[in-house]
Amino acid sequence: MNKRRIGFSRERELARILWKKGFAVIRAPASGAKARKLSYPDIVAIKNRVVLAIEVKTKEKPGTVYIDKRQVKKLLEFTRRSGGLGFIAVKIMDGRGWRFIPIEKLEVTRGGNYRVSIDTIDSGLLLKDIVRLGESITSLDKWLSS
Amino acid sequence: MNKRRIGFSRERELARILWKKGFAVIRAPASGAKARKLSYPDIVAIKNRVVLAIEVKTKEKPGTVYIDKRQVKKLLEFTRRSGGLGFIAVKIMDGRGWRFIPIEKLEVTRGGNYRVSIDTIDSGLLLKDIVRLGESITSLDKWLSS
Repeated sequence: MNKRRIGFSRERELARILWKKGFAVIRAPASGAKARKLSYPDIVAIKNRVVLAIEVKTKEKPGTVYIDKRQVKKLLEFTRRSGGLGFIAVKIMDGRGWRFIPIEKLEVTRGGNYRVSIDTIDSGLLLKDIVRLGESITSLDKWLSS
Repeated sequence: MNKRRIGFSRERELARILWKKGFAVIRAPASGAKARKLSYPDIVAIKNRVVLAIEVKTKEKPGTVYIDKRQVKKLLEFTRRSGGLGFIAVKIMDGRGWRFIPIEKLEVTRGGNYRVSIDTIDSGLLLKDIVRLGESITSLDKWLSS
């Protein structure tokens, strides 16, 4: 599989996991990828009116993940309108599970794009934390202020 | 345009209107329509954590609108998971504007499908009512109990 297809495959995997955990899930279509990149996050998951807007990143080996400023802008616009929470979901293909990094934790690069270090990824939220957000969002405030 | 394309065109129109009114909007993809029919409403619009799940119906002339039970099941599943509100959005092509009918107002047909009469359509919510929902959902309770 090429990189783009691996990406879609991971998105589908995460969408299924969140659906099984009781979220209503919308996955941006694989086809017409150019058009949809303008307006939709990769995944939107909603439970009890808690809205999670998620961009999915896959990495072969542990290391810094870079995110295009347009992707971050799109996430911020979506969360502002919806009243939701924005996350970068990272799956490193070395056996680690998913990690969810709130957009507030991203660092800006010199070029105006964004990055998240492997330390921040490792200390990101786990799937069980995300599931818990669907019960109450106060736990994220606690996590962000720690 | 054939019926299917007219439908997509109306969905796009409504998605744009809701976006302009400040909602975060996700429109189910036109391509791969079969697959997506299993899980997504035509449009999901979110504002201030008020989640609206919408199926779009177009009709040439005033009359009863019929909705397949699978579409209603899909809407109910999505609203249950998300904590959102389900609507059938109807546009009759005789110059009337959009009407939004809460799924609670649908009548069951003998075949187990659903219908909504022209009277119920005419007394449905207007776009401005829907926009107001994005500010508070208490107004729908009032409308439903009237």
